[in-house]
Amino acid sequence: MEFTSQLQSYRTRTEQGIDLLLPPATTRPTRLHAAMRYSLLAGGKRLRPILTLAAADIFNRANSQLPLAQPALPAPSADPLPVAVALECIHTYSLVHDDLPCMDNDDLRRGQPTCHKQFDEATALLAGDALLTLAFQLVARHYALTPSLALALTGILSEAAGSERLIGGQMEDLLAERKSAATANELDFIHHNKTGAMLTAALLAGGRCGGATDTQLSLLEDAGRHLGLAFQIVDDVLDATADSATLGKTAGKDAKAGKTTYVTLHGLDASGRYAREQTDAALAALNRLPGGAPFLSRLTENMAARTS
Amino acid sequence: MEFTSQLQSYRTRTEQGIDLLLPPATTRPTRLHAAMRYSLLAGGKRLRPILTLAAADIFNRANSQLPLAQPALPAPSADPLPVAVALECIHTYSLVHDDLPCMDNDDLRRGQPTCHKQFDEATALLAGDALLTLAFQLVARHYALTPSLALALTGILSEAAGSERLIGGQMEDLLAERKSAATANELDFIHHNKTGAMLTAALLAGGRCGGATDTQLSLLEDAGRHLGLAFQIVDDVLDATADSATLGKTAGKDAKAGKTTYVTLHGLDASGRYAREQTDAALAALNRLPGGAPFLSRLTENMAARTS
Repeated sequence: MEFTSQLQSYRTRTEQGIDLLLPPATTRPTRLHAAMRYSLLAGGKRLRPILTLAAADIFNRANSQLPLAQPALPAPSADPLPVAVALECIHTYSLVHDDLPCMDNDDLRRGQPTCHKQFDEATALLAGDALLTLAFQLVARHYALTPSLALALTGILSEAAGSERLIGGQMEDLLAERKSAATANELDFIHHNKTGAMLTAALLAGGRCGGATDTQLSLLEDAGRHLGLAFQIVDDVLDATADSATLGKTAGKDAKAGKTTYVTLHGLDASGRYAREQTDAALAALNRLPGGAPFLSRLTENMAARTS
Repeated sequence: MEFTSQLQSYRTRTEQGIDLLLPPATTRPTRLHAAMRYSLLAGGKRLRPILTLAAADIFNRANSQLPLAQPALPAPSADPLPVAVALECIHTYSLVHDDLPCMDNDDLRRGQPTCHKQFDEATALLAGDALLTLAFQLVARHYALTPSLALALTGILSEAAGSERLIGGQMEDLLAERKSAATANELDFIHHNKTGAMLTAALLAGGRCGGATDTQLSLLEDAGRHLGLAFQIVDDVLDATADSATLGKTAGKDAKAGKTTYVTLHGLDASGRYAREQTDAALAALNRLPGGAPFLSRLTENMAARTS
């Protein structure tokens, strides 16, 4: 399948999965479920679930390339969709909490009012808590027939989202904002953990569902780490150069907040070069996977060249 | 072992487990880990972990009654301590978030400044998030050799803590506070979920670690449901009758907030009778467990008669 169609197909599958796997807004407490759905269905790139679905497909190519009408083949080792949705739940919860007044105090996210603006602070707090919890419910419910896989996925998600990775990155980010400037080393730590941990987890979760070997999982981990850094540097560049309408969120916030970014630390040119180095390193790892992982490679290139 | 010594032994084991299983305060980000430890080590009844440890012991009686010096017997099916600590992490996270200004805005918890008072709001928010995530890390790390048990425990914890149980109860509680009065039915829903879900999960997790049968798990579930309601009614009675120093938290808050409780809805006498009925129902379920579950029965009686 051509790249753009495949990307759209993964995105559609993700959004159908989200709609199917989230509690209905008619289930009590309806306000809480409405807030969870509002935040999760407000759009976004769906990068993490797409990475998961695509990583699983590397190891299930035979199945994934068959047209839908084809008679059923043996099922792949496990459907990566529930854990892909779980990853998007964790990503979304982190944004909902990050937007709260006591954190970044952001009014706009993906071009729409943030959860606490649309509902209220308490509802947004609880909706975030519930999305994080739902991620683990989804794993326990949907991989119940493969306990070892469920265990591996619980481990991947909980480590990536934990106090030394995702939350750790947010905490250090917060501390860095409170002092005058962060060092290059601190900035790498923040970005490696705040962004890289979950991108890596997305690739690893997909690899696990597809039945990747330990060596292949290591390559996915390498790719995720470099992809995460590249992604974050490009984010910093865009915050400094794009406008809010294009970004769908408040632009220029970093500079206004006097925040240290790759751009303030290294300048625009060096940031561009650093992003390119990290992108190349991610591509080198992907290239060593079965079939050379053409979809993920193209996605990696596109992310480096993105404008929003 | 005599009840009081056994209770103290479970509590000590829990507190040693917490200290051992939480990230050290010297690990980066140190402020986040310090806040997690502050909240978790600030005391409390340790009711949930004690329920877990005691429930496991019902099915491992032979082992639990041996003095420590005895030569090692075959290990019980799984050590309940990590999941006991995981339950306390979830309970504590829910308190940390519940105390935040956008929720109950409480300054005092267990006789000490609440997490956001001791640190700040953002740190408390992230510490709560990290404690919830840690619960699932502990399960994935410490039950790695028994994937089916790890899966069952992930399911028990994530369902009990989810949007239709623990968080659902908190959300409906919040909504009830915003209108003039809650009905008896709404109040039952809130308390059944806000308190009962995690007490039941604690008993079920212990039962699973001890190797309880499905019938025995059902009895533990019954006991937990009734225990949860009894516990909450007694809480309401104490809020109306005890003082802050005895409670270790602000007393009389419910009345001041015009909040509907069992006491405002049914009066003190009827609340006492209702608590007794629920206590008796819990005892009836416990009585049908192997050996009659004397420790848990006594604990249930003590909880009904508690003064703080």
